[in-house]
Amino acid sequence: MPINNVKLGKNTKIFHETLVNIYGCELGDNVTVGPFIEIQKGVKIGNNVKVQSHSFICEGVTIEDDCFIGHSVIFINDKYPKSVNADGTKQSDGDWKVIPTLIKKGASLGSGSIIMCGITIGENSVIGAGAVVTKDVPANTVVAGVPARLIRNL
Amino acid sequence: MPINNVKLGKNTKIFHETLVNIYGCELGDNVTVGPFIEIQKGVKIGNNVKVQSHSFICEGVTIEDDCFIGHSVIFINDKYPKSVNADGTKQSDGDWKVIPTLIKKGASLGSGSIIMCGITIGENSVIGAGAVVTKDVPANTVVAGVPARLIRNL
Amino acid sequence: MPINNVKLGKNTKIFHETLVNIYGCELGDNVTVGPFIEIQKGVKIGNNVKVQSHSFICEGVTIEDDCFIGHSVIFINDKYPKSVNADGTKQSDGDWKVIPTLIKKGASLGSGSIIMCGITIGENSVIGAGAVVTKDVPANTVVAGVPARLIRNL
Repeated sequence: MPINNVKLGKNTKIFHETLVNIYGCELGDNVTVGPFIEIQKGVKIGNNVKVQSHSFICEGVTIEDDCFIGHSVIFINDKYPKSVNADGTKQSDGDWKVIPTLIKKGASLGSGSIIMCGITIGENSVIGAGAVVTKDVPANTVVAGVPARLIRNL
Repeated sequence: MPINNVKLGKNTKIFHETLVNIYGCELGDNVTVGPFIEIQKGVKIGNNVKVQSHSFICEGVTIEDDCFIGHSVIFINDKYPKSVNADGTKQSDGDWKVIPTLIKKGASLGSGSIIMCGITIGENSVIGAGAVVTKDVPANTVVAGVPARLIRNL
Repeated sequence: MPINNVKLGKNTKIFHETLVNIYGCELGDNVTVGPFIEIQKGVKIGNNVKVQSHSFICEGVTIEDDCFIGHSVIFINDKYPKSVNADGTKQSDGDWKVIPTLIKKGASLGSGSIIMCGITIGENSVIGAGAVVTKDVPANTVVAGVPARLIRNL
């Protein structure tokens, strides 16, 4: 099933229920979710968040109120992902440690940005389109580039 | 509904009608559209255009005849997207100004490229895979990189 | 049909059959495939491979055993893709030459990476998230960036 075991707040809209894969997570009030989205178990999304099309939000991610998640934004929860363990068996849940990521209130993540794990993005900060964010971003700043660097303060 | 209020030209094919979200736009003759595509209202696409899988084409974008839009190409129509207005209410249509983008005849946009708004890409120009295009691209040139820079003239 | 003419090995799982487009290819044993995936004809994927969500694997790609293909990974098989031929007719199969790509055993391709064509990625190598890989990657190395450069040996 494409939507499974999801706690949805008031007035929250998943626009295309047949075009998403969302499970085991919690979305606040007035959230909107576009098509071609995967949101995994354990994710918490606050109120008034927009999640645009084609984004992937993995286990370990928390997104506070009022954030904007652009199109094709990718989160990561494992620094060295592998398909198999050292003994040759396929990896499954429990074979790696989920590293958490926190997106603070009012942040705006530009389309095509990639957010490495273990990172906090500060309140109201703006991540430029296509940026690869490899370390914490202070509040009220704009970062962009690969890897993302400070462009200016807000 | 995944396809809604779309004007389709002759011999135009949307290959996977259950795997797209296309609405309020106009596609010319002999256009092909792959899966996992969103095309928004007001978009105009000319004749003989290929739109490959996973791309997002937003309101404000015009694509002339004979263009190639690779896989996972992302367009943008708002330089500073936010989820909420200054008064804390959720943003909706009319709370931001759509900034147009024009892709001129015969241009080829490489897979994974990101096209910022307010930009014109000139005739027959080639955008390298993964480029982030932040300013106008002259006709008959190749650009690549983040941000995109001139590689050579054609 | 979203899954058509695919040879599947033992214990291989395509998790969301209505959210993929997979045709004319061969997947080995113990492979897992996420949602929003296109895998084209002629692709060969070995045993124990993970293909995460939103990735595009084109004709010409071979992926050996034990590889990890992250989210939104894009492969390419044509260096200068065009929509139309010089005579103005729409391009179709046979109007371009597919350039092959080989991903060797145990390689890990980070999310959002783009793999240009004509490339071999060596055994157990790691491609950083968001990297654009434009040339061969030796075995047991980590590369990252745009274009991808050697970060360290494993």
